[in-house]
Amino acid sequence: MSSAPHVAIVGATGAVGREFLKVLHQRQFAMSGLRLLASSRSAGKSIELGDKSYTVERLTENSFKGVDLALFGTDGPISKRYAPIASEDGCTVVDNSSAFRMTDGVPLIIPEVNAEAIKGFAPGRGGIIANPNCSTIIMLVPVTPLHRAAVVQRIVVSTYQAASGAGAVAMDELEQQTREVLEGRPPTCNVFSQQYAFNLFSHDSQVGADGYNAEESKMAHETEKIWSNPDVRITATCVRVPVLRAHAESINLQFEKPLGDDEARRILGEAPGVSIIDDRENNRFPTPLDVSGRDDVYVGRIRNDRSRNGTADGGLDLFVCGDQLRKGAALNAVQIAELIV
Amino acid sequence: MSSAPHVAIVGATGAVGREFLKVLHQRQFAMSGLRLLASSRSAGKSIELGDKSYTVERLTENSFKGVDLALFGTDGPISKRYAPIASEDGCTVVDNSSAFRMTDGVPLIIPEVNAEAIKGFAPGRGGIIANPNCSTIIMLVPVTPLHRAAVVQRIVVSTYQAASGAGAVAMDELEQQTREVLEGRPPTCNVFSQQYAFNLFSHDSQVGADGYNAEESKMAHETEKIWSNPDVRITATCVRVPVLRAHAESINLQFEKPLGDDEARRILGEAPGVSIIDDRENNRFPTPLDVSGRDDVYVGRIRNDRSRNGTADGGLDLFVCGDQLRKGAALNAVQIAELIV
Repeated sequence: MSSAPHVAIVGATGAVGREFLKVLHQRQFAMSGLRLLASSRSAGKSIELGDKSYTVERLTENSFKGVDLALFGTDGPISKRYAPIASEDGCTVVDNSSAFRMTDGVPLIIPEVNAEAIKGFAPGRGGIIANPNCSTIIMLVPVTPLHRAAVVQRIVVSTYQAASGAGAVAMDELEQQTREVLEGRPPTCNVFSQQYAFNLFSHDSQVGADGYNAEESKMAHETEKIWSNPDVRITATCVRVPVLRAHAESINLQFEKPLGDDEARRILGEAPGVSIIDDRENNRFPTPLDVSGRDDVYVGRIRNDRSRNGTADGGLDLFVCGDQLRKGAALNAVQIAELIV
Repeated sequence: MSSAPHVAIVGATGAVGREFLKVLHQRQFAMSGLRLLASSRSAGKSIELGDKSYTVERLTENSFKGVDLALFGTDGPISKRYAPIASEDGCTVVDNSSAFRMTDGVPLIIPEVNAEAIKGFAPGRGGIIANPNCSTIIMLVPVTPLHRAAVVQRIVVSTYQAASGAGAVAMDELEQQTREVLEGRPPTCNVFSQQYAFNLFSHDSQVGADGYNAEESKMAHETEKIWSNPDVRITATCVRVPVLRAHAESINLQFEKPLGDDEARRILGEAPGVSIIDDRENNRFPTPLDVSGRDDVYVGRIRNDRSRNGTADGGLDLFVCGDQLRKGAALNAVQIAELIV
């Protein structure tokens, strides 16, 4: 490998793929070459990055020859098929899908949280690194520093998730449906089975025998893996709301040691990747719009849990917002790439 | 008083006031007369109810002479001023505002939950009965039967609240803003201080010194009063989402005695005012649109809390939706009126 890696973006025309490009450019990620790969439907399209223009190529089993580092913005089945092929060809993969997250030997990385788990990986060596689920990342960036201070025992989290988590087509569907509803026409439902405009619904991932949907189970199991802590107890309720590209989460925390809101605010104020908007007087706290296009996870509503005041371990409530496409996906993956370069 | 009461609706042209009219008509509430009262701005307007037409009169201190029962759909300051005057004139008041909810001697009633607390009230006798906060009602209709079975110790609730809770003007603002944003114009913010279209934000009620906003404190304190139980521990996070008229709530419950999800489903299936939509296979659970215009509170996502499995007291997660204007306001008030007639 030359000093700068040859990079490929897989799924380059999707919502996450496009954000990969933006983030690489904004962070001036050093590359000796860049290939944009996508399905045959998108092959031949041209995409600009800075002053360069790239032609999207069709993803095939031969796409990874000579590529040192691939960022996969594809869904599970595509990642499952092509990431091992890339790795076999010596291309190191950072995969945004859920395909390998729980696989032994595949590090599941949030750079601010568990960078140490990535040891031994480098561009050109092959291997797969997994990018966690967007809701997991957005929760753990602010919760981990509190966990380090007081040991989180239990998390009750309810999410307010944007359309972008289901891709560009879902964002388009939300806009189209909204226009239709405002014009008194029936909403077109292709991506989702029910009306999204001016509505919300339980996350559309499959519901398991325990009653949790896949998104909720990911938040629990990925946290256990990222924290190397099978004892943390998590219950999540994941909900899609008619917002375009940033997720919000209402998070209730119980700790092993007492941790008050002043101390939490101090810790979060120093935490990497975290910004605070917590203006009680003016009722200004993070919103999805505030954080759209931003890198940090924003935290507010930091308060002592009144239902646990007076109990030995106390508790905290938080409200957090993070851009699903940036820290929830593309930015985190590029930060992983930066770690191994 | 004649056999049927003479009724007044105060704030008749607001979102709740208009719903009072609809609900009285739909439930064929027997009345010997009906006055519609509102501010001078709306006086003179005419409103139809079935085959009758009513002219809106200006609310004054003399409006309640000869009126047996008044339904107040006004905000706190108006209720605070006029409800005591009405009561003084022998008019029994059911007030939807927060003005009297925590006042000693004022029953705070959800008919399915604590009808017994209303004893002694009747039309024409004066007195004030308070309608609880919409989020409190929508939570307690399904949670109370579970509480009766297993004793709720702690509730962690996150809300997804519709525009209607801030009145018809807020519903109009959400629609207007959405049109503006879709047309690429800046959104008009009059009712709320920040963009509502394709966004969400922490509930706009005042935030107290403990970091909870007024809506969240209401959910806690009203529950304590309605259940006559100062020991129940509640932490709420209240959030406005861009939905028009039905609230959703993600509710996590801890109990004194074990209560599994099968038993919870059985109890909820028999509970008055509760309907269940809990189709895991097809991922169909209650949504705000499902319940708009409906009387019941709808419950789904009934599942054992995996963060408490194995603990002695277990725990449950629920997702509920209720029409904010009906069971959250007008319907509950009319049901109170039916109780005392």
